[in-house]
Amino acid sequence: MSVLIVGSIALDTVKTPVEEHSDLLGGSASYAAAAASFFSPVKLVGVVGDDFPESEFEFWKSRKVDIEGVQRVEGKTFRWSGEYAWDLNTRETRSVALNVFERFKPTLPPSYRKTDFVFLANIAPSLQAHVLDQMERPRFVVADTMDLWIETTRADLDALLRRIDLLILNDSEAREMTKETSLIKAGRRIRGFGPRFVAIKKGEHGALLFGENEFFSCGAYPLEDIHDPTGAGDTFAGGMAGYLAGNVSTVHFTDLRKAMIYGSVLASFCVEAFSLERLRNLSMEEINERYETFKLMSQFELA
Amino acid sequence: MSVLIVGSIALDTVKTPVEEHSDLLGGSASYAAAAASFFSPVKLVGVVGDDFPESEFEFWKSRKVDIEGVQRVEGKTFRWSGEYAWDLNTRETRSVALNVFERFKPTLPPSYRKTDFVFLANIAPSLQAHVLDQMERPRFVVADTMDLWIETTRADLDALLRRIDLLILNDSEAREMTKETSLIKAGRRIRGFGPRFVAIKKGEHGALLFGENEFFSCGAYPLEDIHDPTGAGDTFAGGMAGYLAGNVSTVHFTDLRKAMIYGSVLASFCVEAFSLERLRNLSMEEINERYETFKLMSQFELA
Repeated sequence: MSVLIVGSIALDTVKTPVEEHSDLLGGSASYAAAAASFFSPVKLVGVVGDDFPESEFEFWKSRKVDIEGVQRVEGKTFRWSGEYAWDLNTRETRSVALNVFERFKPTLPPSYRKTDFVFLANIAPSLQAHVLDQMERPRFVVADTMDLWIETTRADLDALLRRIDLLILNDSEAREMTKETSLIKAGRRIRGFGPRFVAIKKGEHGALLFGENEFFSCGAYPLEDIHDPTGAGDTFAGGMAGYLAGNVSTVHFTDLRKAMIYGSVLASFCVEAFSLERLRNLSMEEINERYETFKLMSQFELA
Repeated sequence: MSVLIVGSIALDTVKTPVEEHSDLLGGSASYAAAAASFFSPVKLVGVVGDDFPESEFEFWKSRKVDIEGVQRVEGKTFRWSGEYAWDLNTRETRSVALNVFERFKPTLPPSYRKTDFVFLANIAPSLQAHVLDQMERPRFVVADTMDLWIETTRADLDALLRRIDLLILNDSEAREMTKETSLIKAGRRIRGFGPRFVAIKKGEHGALLFGENEFFSCGAYPLEDIHDPTGAGDTFAGGMAGYLAGNVSTVHFTDLRKAMIYGSVLASFCVEAFSLERLRNLSMEEINERYETFKLMSQFELA
């Protein structure tokens, strides 16, 4: 089955203590689509300006990413520029130019409306809801969010939470959303807001997954060198959604475990290079090999 | 086989946002011995004053903790008082009175010197070394340390590291010891300082284990309510050392995985009540039940 992915498509300028690169493909939907495309066909929804490189459309086509839902409009593509601190754990946004993204209203081509799996990557909750409004009973809806929406459009977000199956958010966002210090309490409380499942990302510390009376915890794949953390969270979420769309018809907790591990594996590759560079030349063999290594590193007892 | 445990024995006063209790049994050796005693006989080394409650000796005896190595001297027992912040993640030391601990010099009774497993809980590295000097070729030596020794007695600590098999320390200490931000790099570098194995404790995020070309990562057992975090790290380490002494003759990486999980399980019980209260009335059935639950929560794929 396919997965519909909606989110931002951007051109990024990223500075780390070691390197700086500009006009890189970025945005939540770009990372998520690349990650998901390893597991299932993707129907991409987003907007780009007339400065957007034609080569990226070719990349998407080569990966079976349907781009009928990508609007090409007059003006400049969304641009983001950020700089990472020495430890790569914190970053500062140097500039944001929404450009064509400012008036983005996701409209689904008729061929997208029956897609079974949906990943609503990080955009305003009202836009995420607008996508759902156009769909015909998707089987499983995954959504990401961020602190900005928790702080500024909480009512929209709360309404959205009642319409989705899995919410993916990071640890600080989970704490902010619930005012709970304990991530265990936070994850369980967020389930009470609507989503049947909640995944909390903890960066270098891995991720937690909450279901009804079910819990799964996994670490992060151990990496000595990280080159660019940008997009790791979107890659994680896109990998999860893509794995589910490609491998599962009715989603159970046990499928979400595997999805989360594949998401972690994809994210671990993502941060090994700038932008989507590592995801562009990654193979399914490499993904499966790392999955197996990661499994061995996490098993309590070896067979 | 038995495990020799040396460290501090204290009477603690602990304040959390909810409760305050005074004159509680505390100290690194007390927690470690209680945890280890579930798996193997313990030979305890420490010092107490004449104010130390007789009932605690009875407790140790009831748990097959040999107290021949606990010196009872004139004066007051080591006292520590601390207060936890609202989130229980940070604490402030309100007062420390070393009392009889100030002149503590661990002397081993002859019956202790051939003990196969040793856990050098958190005391000055020179005292940890002094214990090893009195021993006859122990099979496996585990040591804990803290920021104070990394900052003030680094040469002693470095000398000790070359004589031990497993170093257990927390994430901030690992970063401080190596000046590495990445815990993966830090763990591997510390192996270069001497110990064949390194365990890095990450509190609510679990723990990492490093061997030669081997790595294991486990989360923390998920708890909604923590009552008193005091002693969790000592319980973790004591549980590891006790499990090894009781179950393994030659320690391999796969044994250390299980030891680390048992350590995590013991620590998760420890924080459910003040002081050692939960460890006092804990059963092996409860430990094994939580081990199995924890395993299910961490497995990538269910059988």
